[in-house]
Amino acid sequence: MTLQVGIIGTGMIGQDHIRRLTQVLSGVRVVAVTDINLERAQAAAPQGATVYETPQELIRAAEVQAVVICSWGPAHEEQLLDCIAVGKPVFCEKPLVTSAEAALRVMEAETAFGLRLVQVGFMRRFDADYRRLKAVIDGGTLGAPLMYKSVHRNASVPEGLYTSDMPLNDTLVHDADISRWLLRDEIAGVEVRVPRRSSRGGELRDPVMVLLHMTSGAIVDVEISVNIAYGYDIRGEVSCETGIAALPNRPATVITDQFGIRQAIPEDWRERFIEAYDQEFREWIVAAGQGTATGPSTWDGYAATLVADAALRAVASQHLETVEMVSKPDLYNQ
Amino acid sequence: MTLQVGIIGTGMIGQDHIRRLTQVLSGVRVVAVTDINLERAQAAAPQGATVYETPQELIRAAEVQAVVICSWGPAHEEQLLDCIAVGKPVFCEKPLVTSAEAALRVMEAETAFGLRLVQVGFMRRFDADYRRLKAVIDGGTLGAPLMYKSVHRNASVPEGLYTSDMPLNDTLVHDADISRWLLRDEIAGVEVRVPRRSSRGGELRDPVMVLLHMTSGAIVDVEISVNIAYGYDIRGEVSCETGIAALPNRPATVITDQFGIRQAIPEDWRERFIEAYDQEFREWIVAAGQGTATGPSTWDGYAATLVADAALRAVASQHLETVEMVSKPDLYNQ
Amino acid sequence: MTLQVGIIGTGMIGQDHIRRLTQVLSGVRVVAVTDINLERAQAAAPQGATVYETPQELIRAAEVQAVVICSWGPAHEEQLLDCIAVGKPVFCEKPLVTSAEAALRVMEAETAFGLRLVQVGFMRRFDADYRRLKAVIDGGTLGAPLMYKSVHRNASVPEGLYTSDMPLNDTLVHDADISRWLLRDEIAGVEVRVPRRSSRGGELRDPVMVLLHMTSGAIVDVEISVNIAYGYDIRGEVSCETGIAALPNRPATVITDQFGIRQAIPEDWRERFIEAYDQEFREWIVAAGQGTATGPSTWDGYAATLVADAALRAVASQHLETVEMVSKPDLYNQ
Amino acid sequence: MTLQVGIIGTGMIGQDHIRRLTQVLSGVRVVAVTDINLERAQAAAPQGATVYETPQELIRAAEVQAVVICSWGPAHEEQLLDCIAVGKPVFCEKPLVTSAEAALRVMEAETAFGLRLVQVGFMRRFDADYRRLKAVIDGGTLGAPLMYKSVHRNASVPEGLYTSDMPLNDTLVHDADISRWLLRDEIAGVEVRVPRRSSRGGELRDPVMVLLHMTSGAIVDVEISVNIAYGYDIRGEVSCETGIAALPNRPATVITDQFGIRQAIPEDWRERFIEAYDQEFREWIVAAGQGTATGPSTWDGYAATLVADAALRAVASQHLETVEMVSKPDLYNQ
Repeated sequence: MTLQVGIIGTGMIGQDHIRRLTQVLSGVRVVAVTDINLERAQAAAPQGATVYETPQELIRAAEVQAVVICSWGPAHEEQLLDCIAVGKPVFCEKPLVTSAEAALRVMEAETAFGLRLVQVGFMRRFDADYRRLKAVIDGGTLGAPLMYKSVHRNASVPEGLYTSDMPLNDTLVHDADISRWLLRDEIAGVEVRVPRRSSRGGELRDPVMVLLHMTSGAIVDVEISVNIAYGYDIRGEVSCETGIAALPNRPATVITDQFGIRQAIPEDWRERFIEAYDQEFREWIVAAGQGTATGPSTWDGYAATLVADAALRAVASQHLETVEMVSKPDLYNQ
Repeated sequence: MTLQVGIIGTGMIGQDHIRRLTQVLSGVRVVAVTDINLERAQAAAPQGATVYETPQELIRAAEVQAVVICSWGPAHEEQLLDCIAVGKPVFCEKPLVTSAEAALRVMEAETAFGLRLVQVGFMRRFDADYRRLKAVIDGGTLGAPLMYKSVHRNASVPEGLYTSDMPLNDTLVHDADISRWLLRDEIAGVEVRVPRRSSRGGELRDPVMVLLHMTSGAIVDVEISVNIAYGYDIRGEVSCETGIAALPNRPATVITDQFGIRQAIPEDWRERFIEAYDQEFREWIVAAGQGTATGPSTWDGYAATLVADAALRAVASQHLETVEMVSKPDLYNQ
Repeated sequence: MTLQVGIIGTGMIGQDHIRRLTQVLSGVRVVAVTDINLERAQAAAPQGATVYETPQELIRAAEVQAVVICSWGPAHEEQLLDCIAVGKPVFCEKPLVTSAEAALRVMEAETAFGLRLVQVGFMRRFDADYRRLKAVIDGGTLGAPLMYKSVHRNASVPEGLYTSDMPLNDTLVHDADISRWLLRDEIAGVEVRVPRRSSRGGELRDPVMVLLHMTSGAIVDVEISVNIAYGYDIRGEVSCETGIAALPNRPATVITDQFGIRQAIPEDWRERFIEAYDQEFREWIVAAGQGTATGPSTWDGYAATLVADAALRAVASQHLETVEMVSKPDLYNQ
Repeated sequence: MTLQVGIIGTGMIGQDHIRRLTQVLSGVRVVAVTDINLERAQAAAPQGATVYETPQELIRAAEVQAVVICSWGPAHEEQLLDCIAVGKPVFCEKPLVTSAEAALRVMEAETAFGLRLVQVGFMRRFDADYRRLKAVIDGGTLGAPLMYKSVHRNASVPEGLYTSDMPLNDTLVHDADISRWLLRDEIAGVEVRVPRRSSRGGELRDPVMVLLHMTSGAIVDVEISVNIAYGYDIRGEVSCETGIAALPNRPATVITDQFGIRQAIPEDWRERFIEAYDQEFREWIVAAGQGTATGPSTWDGYAATLVADAALRAVASQHLETVEMVSKPDLYNQ
């Protein structure tokens, strides 16, 4: 059985997912594409796929069994609601939506439908290193998790295009989502501290340090550096009651030469998480084939929106900004 | 375009490849199976696949575009020759064949056909760690490779079923093949030394130490332990003129607890090489789709046979046993 | 030339320093001891050493060229002032004194004397790992330091004797001093956050997280856990503009067995820092032999007092508590 | 109590030991020196030390309680016999003597004296990393040692002065001695294999690979590279029945930058073993103060001579060369 998928948005990430769904993964076929730029859609469409003029048409097309949304954020809400209206499973890239209110509207529609349909693109949850880390924590032999150190370093950012709010609005969501997932916890409050600025980024507020206060009392301490030059470096270390569990070094060749005994660092997120993206879709295909969704949910997208909002408030106020969530619908407790 | 594959042999490894080709990989479909035990073939056949009574029928079936051989070793020669006779690409599990003469006959048929059709199942060449290691060596920044240390440790072996010749006959071929591939070299001679015996294996000759003398003069030093208890531990370190390159630790969670700061070791070859098996077939599918083969060749299977023979002679003689190969057909130089 | 030393205080730490000065180090001789418990002083005195009834007598004794203070904290101020009054170099164990005012009085006396006489016992500055780390930062190839993560974990604390203020009053001073030294910076403010409590310590406030805001803007983030069970684990990682520098694992044997590939963690501070203590005194002996002092100074002891005070205020207020220092006397800029 | 020491030979190593005994270590004083070049002896003599014209005079001088021999190898036998004749403890740098016969004569004199007087300068036994490794093996939790991999790499050797026999004559003795000590075993036979030559050393036979066949059956496999460019790299890994124990990386700062995540390698033996040299003499001083010797003995020096001889025969014969030792005098079993 092959899942027939329609793709909304054929920009860089949309094209990469088309490649993934046609050349890497089994059990899936891209049968429809659309984009606000129809020529780009035409160019990206794999053989045999229909190009639709609008997302609405694509979503409603009979041959489309499931949808992948790679359009820009402000368009997501309407497209998600359309998918839910016709009961089709949908994978939605980050951000799920761009406001807490929008997230609540999507959540309302999905809970009314009564079955999970939405998976949001937090691909780190599918990374083998993070999964092993979570398995150790969940195993319980180290006791309860009390603190988590999350490190998020990018080699560089597009000059002029990257603003000081982006680490808190776009980058932090990954650390926030993985913290909630690793610790099986929610975020109750956010603080932001701004260390000495790196001279590499001009006026850019970089690095930033974020404290996430979890509902359990655990504290997550996030370092975000976006201009560190040397590579893409993602680390995580959980301090539990009787031990520590941390992400390992990436498995690069151990070279001993004039620079010492050493292992290379990934260059970018593509190199670091390419397998996580594959695995993310592998699991989505299985769930979508059964008419539903697993993995990161609308609830998780809602949480991400709240955390980004709180972080932006916190950098301005320099106080603890609390995060207030609605009660969690049962649909997301399963 | 989907490659239509027939499977010969539906034992443990055959079943695993059927799973891989139907559930994991794209661009491929299992359309035919056979086994000396037809009931087992019936049980293993995926939906829509035809069960054939003999390998010959399967190989000749019109819908079979490429063949995977998972039968026992002594049957391989005839099945390979049949595949070559009809010009169909074939993936053959180890051992390619069970004598140097048989390997030469297959090689003769394939060179007469004029195009590579055979890929032999040395999956380590598809492992990401080994590939990065080879890329470092090939890059040349460390100078020429002079020595290679290969370590091959199994947690345990089936009691009573595993004999003292097996490390040299079955296990060593992996180290020998990876040495030839990593160093771009051939094996010119083999020595075997037998250290103090592990008390865990009774009369089993374990561990053994093998020296492979390469044509370039490089020496490969192989430790084979098959009863080491703690896990499945595969290591490799190349000493070059100005530096060293080695396989990294596997990327297990770094745990700090009462046992120290530590990373788990894989339990068995499945855990260690599962992704290499997937990648092996991914690349085979692409080449077979083009009517040919890449990766480990009949020549490599021939070399493996010679090395195993020489190792068995060397453990008896305690002298250097030379390996004499025929001239390498051009077909295998491409 | 042999330095003749008098020891004030022959409790556990005093006895250990007597052992060090008589059995480990060269160029030094313990000629005098005193203690509030004269029997204990008698028992601890090495052969040929005079036991004095009071610190004042010992400090003034003609054969005493330099003094080591191992008495309890509240007695330090008077003893330090006595040493300065007679111009004798003095090594003083932590804490230098127990209030900022006392520190200022000692500083005033020392600056009036015009030459450094006091070295305070922050032994981490003499640890080879920390020194190499500092050399990397000072080397400048990684750019300016922006953040520093300091981790301070003890296996356990004496039940009933260890109170919730001790991590901030006694333990934090090590991280604070090493941060000032590593980053060549001062502490301008302190925040304390209290994560989910470890169930191992009952009502003990453990772990705690401290943020040190440095004058340069750099932020130091300290994790203090005092009941982590698995060992004594000291870590430090400096995030600079273009790279990261961190303390290495301790050089324990790499064992591969059923617990994985692993290295043991030190059991306690003695095992971790014994060589640093030796080196601390090695350098003190040289400076004291020249009638002066190097290493951690009265200024550093003053800073430590201010930080501990601010940390205790900050845990109560949950706000940033600023640290106000007097201007730094020239004597401590050399 | 201070041990009064006389130094024979004030070349580079002699001068370094004088520095160590006067500036680093306690409980010892250099009271006498001699050298074939009396001006050099004069220059090297610490304040208060007498310069003697001959080793014989120095050894017999009343104020000399123990002797350190740093002269060239061929002079050692006579000087050792002189020390034994007067019953004075003596530390002798490598090589103990330059022939097996000479070693036997020294052994005969020492056994006749009835008490160990000689310690030979195998400093690796005093290195903390090796000692921890040995403690793990001796602990027995990993079962019996079956194989040992010893790696000995030098960055470079003095051009023109370093000949192809030196790796086997001078360098191998360290690996041989440490193997005997680690495994509590003797060497029964030696094989030498010569891999592809490094182009960096011209005609120099480099690297070489040596197999030491131990009496227990354990096999030690030694890689000696003397021109590896990148640093001084000493490794050791023991394969036991149920686990592996290995020397750790040296504790260099972990730097993450454009060259990866990395730790520096020591530049030379001085950097690597300086603390081992200090510890070696620390223990010698204690034993010599009691009129005897501990640590590496005349028996160990005898074994080293036999192994070097066998290695030189083995590189010529390309066969296993056996090592025949006399029965071990009881004196060396204690």
